[in-house]
Amino acid sequence: MISLKNIADLCGVSESTVSKALKNHPQIKKLTRERIQEIAKKHNYHPNAMVECMQTGRSRTIGIAYNKFDDMFAGGIMQGVHEELYRQGYETIVICWDMIVKKEAELFNKFSRRRVDGMLIFPMEKLPSSYYMEQLRNFHNPIVIIDQTWEGNEYDFVGSDNFRGAYMAAEHMIKRGISELGAICCTSVSSGQERERGFRKALAEYNIAVNEDWMLDIGDCIDAPFHKIYDFLERTDRPGGLFCFNDNCAVDAVAAAKDLGITVPDELSLVGFGDLSIASRIRPALTTIGQNPAEIGRLAAKLLIKRIKSKDEIKMAMENYVVDVKLIERNTVREKTKE
Amino acid sequence: MISLKNIADLCGVSESTVSKALKNHPQIKKLTRERIQEIAKKHNYHPNAMVECMQTGRSRTIGIAYNKFDDMFAGGIMQGVHEELYRQGYETIVICWDMIVKKEAELFNKFSRRRVDGMLIFPMEKLPSSYYMEQLRNFHNPIVIIDQTWEGNEYDFVGSDNFRGAYMAAEHMIKRGISELGAICCTSVSSGQERERGFRKALAEYNIAVNEDWMLDIGDCIDAPFHKIYDFLERTDRPGGLFCFNDNCAVDAVAAAKDLGITVPDELSLVGFGDLSIASRIRPALTTIGQNPAEIGRLAAKLLIKRIKSKDEIKMAMENYVVDVKLIERNTVREKTKE
Repeated sequence: MISLKNIADLCGVSESTVSKALKNHPQIKKLTRERIQEIAKKHNYHPNAMVECMQTGRSRTIGIAYNKFDDMFAGGIMQGVHEELYRQGYETIVICWDMIVKKEAELFNKFSRRRVDGMLIFPMEKLPSSYYMEQLRNFHNPIVIIDQTWEGNEYDFVGSDNFRGAYMAAEHMIKRGISELGAICCTSVSSGQERERGFRKALAEYNIAVNEDWMLDIGDCIDAPFHKIYDFLERTDRPGGLFCFNDNCAVDAVAAAKDLGITVPDELSLVGFGDLSIASRIRPALTTIGQNPAEIGRLAAKLLIKRIKSKDEIKMAMENYVVDVKLIERNTVREKTKE
Repeated sequence: MISLKNIADLCGVSESTVSKALKNHPQIKKLTRERIQEIAKKHNYHPNAMVECMQTGRSRTIGIAYNKFDDMFAGGIMQGVHEELYRQGYETIVICWDMIVKKEAELFNKFSRRRVDGMLIFPMEKLPSSYYMEQLRNFHNPIVIIDQTWEGNEYDFVGSDNFRGAYMAAEHMIKRGISELGAICCTSVSSGQERERGFRKALAEYNIAVNEDWMLDIGDCIDAPFHKIYDFLERTDRPGGLFCFNDNCAVDAVAAAKDLGITVPDELSLVGFGDLSIASRIRPALTTIGQNPAEIGRLAAKLLIKRIKSKDEIKMAMENYVVDVKLIERNTVREKTKE
């Protein structure tokens, strides 16, 4: 690529003259400016973002510690993140978190070396290690955590209203006359813990005792829970309604029920969580809790930029955004039987 | 963040001494080196990647023009891309293509300003405009195109063996005695055109005439083809077997058949393309053509790095990698009836 110096040589002027001419500086004569601009255009010159970064101390890049590119929910968040960052003129450096989870330091080193102005950190399945936390604390620029958090988290956080979503899911089944309720939980992530609490709260408020035998934890096989769900549903003593931690679990529960000859929703009602595109596309179409991943992404990006811009001013209090969820009724919860 | 200059001031030496000490240069006395290294570590100093970039002319970043973060197939490719780039010590700047499709120049300007060493370009749904092509040609560094290509493409390309996959899909149904074959096509993308050709070739080789009424093109509604597929299957004159452009179409065809009371596979056999995770998780589980998105991503990244490293040497011929596909038999194609 042609450099500022190349253009200066071509025009027979100094680099500083070229630089000023390209910024339309009035100090450079109009004719000279136009000649320099024409040559720069002809040779497809682009100013070097790194020079600007070294002059201003701001790189206008955000580091994103991502989780999985083939996860549709995280993908929806990323779409929102990029929309907002694009709008505000930031570029993103994406590092895939699960590849380097064993070398936690490397993630932060890479972002520090690239002088990112801030970091967006995506879901971790486990509690961060103390080493990881120390690295986070040593990072000099703002950080926003997305979707999953942990006890004592000191950073800004944006996620879904998991508690309320699970509460609504349970309440919906209760109001349809289904009281033999169970749940597929995922206690290895914070969203799973919150959803379990919401489910239990709804049962408590409607004076329904939780049957602990109907609480299935798939925490150790979050990516492929089918066999655990199949075994759970194979027992003769099973619930009449199941709140599922996410749509993936619900899709697997629909398949396991089908394989076992259990009719959904007549013999087994199901509510998922997420409203991934597949929820409306399988049969029976899934009743689920709709999340808004793009909005989570946009809010997280906005919050981070706000932090970056006010970094050198007064310290802002930590912020916690919880994005609203809603019940989406489709065909996996049975109608209320007439009394 | 602490700078080289800050460390030099703290240690009472020059910046150049600090720089050498941090690189373990023998010219600096061992005691001084250790003292400087200790202070750098204490203050969590990281060398500035941009300085290195400006010295070497290489940024060790790759620009990725991505399409959709919530597309599982593209996500699988990205996973492979990042795996390989991570292994080779490159970072990625990801720009979301569909946000700026109307401002094509901006994409390349952004990548040029960031001085990326090369570009990976993801699927475009339409043929690139002449303006876009001119921008591509003006980009000074190597480019690899992924998954979708176009007539007369002059760049390296990595994609799936779409022709063979579609051929195998049709042949599989023919060998099971299904000769009334149709296809859901998508002629707006190159992979769709290749798949249609493969399908037609199989029918020709088995002396089966193509019924053009059974060839449905969903090119204009690739993201939500359900209603088109539903209308297509609602007719009394419909095929006994359908090759579907991708798994999303096949999932929608399963749902439309269910809604219309058509039994899969007894009355309608279906073969998808992709083997997305949902293929094995719906019921009936989908017979499909397995692609290898992670391998496509790894190969594309490898090819790009090879180009970057040999950029100043002899000109390499354009390369075209076609990644193998395979038939995955599940439950959407009916068994051969005994004669």
